[in-house]
Amino acid sequence: MNSQRTAFFVSDRTGITAEMLGHSLLTQFEGVRLKEITVPFIDSADKAMNFVRQINATAIADGVRPIVISTLVNTEIAGIVSKANALFLDSFEIFIDPLERELGVKASHAVGRSHSTDDFVNYHHRIEAVNYALSHDDGVSKRELTEADIILVGVSRCGKTPTCLYLAMQFGIRAANYPLIPEDFSTMQLPAQIKSLRARLYGLTIRPARLQQIRNERRPGSKYATLANCEFEIREAEALMRQEGIPYLDATSKSVEELATTILQEAKLERRIY
Amino acid sequence: MNSQRTAFFVSDRTGITAEMLGHSLLTQFEGVRLKEITVPFIDSADKAMNFVRQINATAIADGVRPIVISTLVNTEIAGIVSKANALFLDSFEIFIDPLERELGVKASHAVGRSHSTDDFVNYHHRIEAVNYALSHDDGVSKRELTEADIILVGVSRCGKTPTCLYLAMQFGIRAANYPLIPEDFSTMQLPAQIKSLRARLYGLTIRPARLQQIRNERRPGSKYATLANCEFEIREAEALMRQEGIPYLDATSKSVEELATTILQEAKLERRIY
Repeated sequence: MNSQRTAFFVSDRTGITAEMLGHSLLTQFEGVRLKEITVPFIDSADKAMNFVRQINATAIADGVRPIVISTLVNTEIAGIVSKANALFLDSFEIFIDPLERELGVKASHAVGRSHSTDDFVNYHHRIEAVNYALSHDDGVSKRELTEADIILVGVSRCGKTPTCLYLAMQFGIRAANYPLIPEDFSTMQLPAQIKSLRARLYGLTIRPARLQQIRNERRPGSKYATLANCEFEIREAEALMRQEGIPYLDATSKSVEELATTILQEAKLERRIY
Repeated sequence: MNSQRTAFFVSDRTGITAEMLGHSLLTQFEGVRLKEITVPFIDSADKAMNFVRQINATAIADGVRPIVISTLVNTEIAGIVSKANALFLDSFEIFIDPLERELGVKASHAVGRSHSTDDFVNYHHRIEAVNYALSHDDGVSKRELTEADIILVGVSRCGKTPTCLYLAMQFGIRAANYPLIPEDFSTMQLPAQIKSLRARLYGLTIRPARLQQIRNERRPGSKYATLANCEFEIREAEALMRQEGIPYLDATSKSVEELATTILQEAKLERRIY
C-alpha cells in the first residue's frame, strides 16, 4: 500500500480559486503532504464522470480516499462528482444558501457568469498596464514615467520586475521600475529621471545572502554576485531611500503577491481591475 | 437611505483567494450589484477591531448589513470579525473540521504557513519564467527559442503577451511569443525561426471586430487597425495555422486566466509552480 494521499481542486472554469483556497487549507496541516492536482473545465456530465473514475482509481492506487475541494457552480455536475470515493468539500454550494437568504434572490448556477462590459474594461486596463510595465522595465522608458501610478526602485535583482507585472495583471496598476546602481550611491542622489517623481517612488530591498544567491544563478562567480558587493549595494540603496524619504519593503520572505498587495495598500493606489 | 450594499473580502494575507471566491459567488446573483472591497493583512486583534468598525459604519451608511467573505486563518481574529453587523461567511473554518477528521491531524491555524523550500523553488521558477517571457516577447529573442516550453503565435494584438506572462507567473512555464505578420501570409510559410519548433507552437486568434477595437486604441485611424485589414490578417493566420497543424484558441471572449489554463491543459505542459 502506498502512503501517498491526493487532493483534487476542481472547477468548471480555470480552477485557480479552488487551487488557491485548497492549497492554503492544506498547508494548515503540518507534516501532511498531499499530491495536489488541479482539474479545470469540468463543465459537462461526461467530464464529471471521467473525473469520478480518476478519483476512484486514485483512491485505490493511494490506498486512501482523496480530498476534493470544489468550486463547481453547476449543481448537477457537483452532484456527480460528490458521488466519488472522496471527501468532497463544496466551497460554492455551502455559501449559496445563506447568500440567497440574505440577498432575497436565487442563484443562477450558470457557469462563467460575468459582466461582459466589466470584462472588456478590465481587459483593456490589464493590457494597458502590462504594456506599460513592459515598456518601463529596468529604467527603459519608451513613454513618460509621469504616467506611472507607481515607480519601484531598488538594487538589481531585488524583485522589481515581477512585482510590477503582478501589479499590472492583478490590479491594472501602471507600474514602472527603475534600478538603483553604484553610480547613484557615489553621489547619493536619485537618478535625474525619477528625482522629481519622489511621491510615486516605492522601494524594494532584500537581504544580502538572498540577493547573492539570486545574482549568482544569473552571473555565477561575478563580482556583481559577491556577498560583499550585495551587502554594499543594499546598504547604500537603503541609506539613499531613507535619505529621500522613500518607503520600502523587504522582499526576502515575501511572495510577489504579498509585495504587490502590500504596495497597493501602503501607497494607496487605486486599482483599475476588479 | 442608500440602496447600495457592500461585500468585504477579508484575509490575514493578500486577500486574493477571498476576493476570487467571493466575486465568483456574487456574480451568481443576477441583477444584484454589490460594492466589492478587498481587505488584506488583517493579522492582529487591533486591525480586526478597526475592520469591525468599518463594517458597522458601512451597514449604517448603506442601510443594509454588508456581506463578509473571509479566509481568515486565525480563529481569534475571525471571532472578532464575526461579531460585526454583517453576514459573515468563513470559508476557512467551515472546511477545517472535516479536514481534521479526515486527516487525523489538528490544523495549526498559523497565518502564512507554507513550505519555505517550495517557496524558494517556486520563486526561482517564476522569476526564470518571467525573464524568459520578457526576453522572448514579440519575436525578440535574446536567448534560444529552443528553451521554450511553448511558443504562442498569432496576429499582432491578439493577446499573446499577457497570456505568456500569466503562464510564467502562475505556472512557471517558459512561454515565448512570435507574431504572424503579412510577410508570412504572402509566402504561407512559418517564419524560419519557429519552423522547426512546430510541436511547441500554439496559436491564438480573435474575432476581427474585437481586434479592430484593440488596435484602434493603439493606433487610431491606421490601416493596421481597419476592419478590412484585421479580417484579412486573421483569415490568413488561421489558414496558415490550419495548414501547419498548429492548434489554436479564440481569445475573443476568454480571460487571460482561461487562455493560460486551457493552453496548459491542451498542450500538456508540465507546470513548475504549485
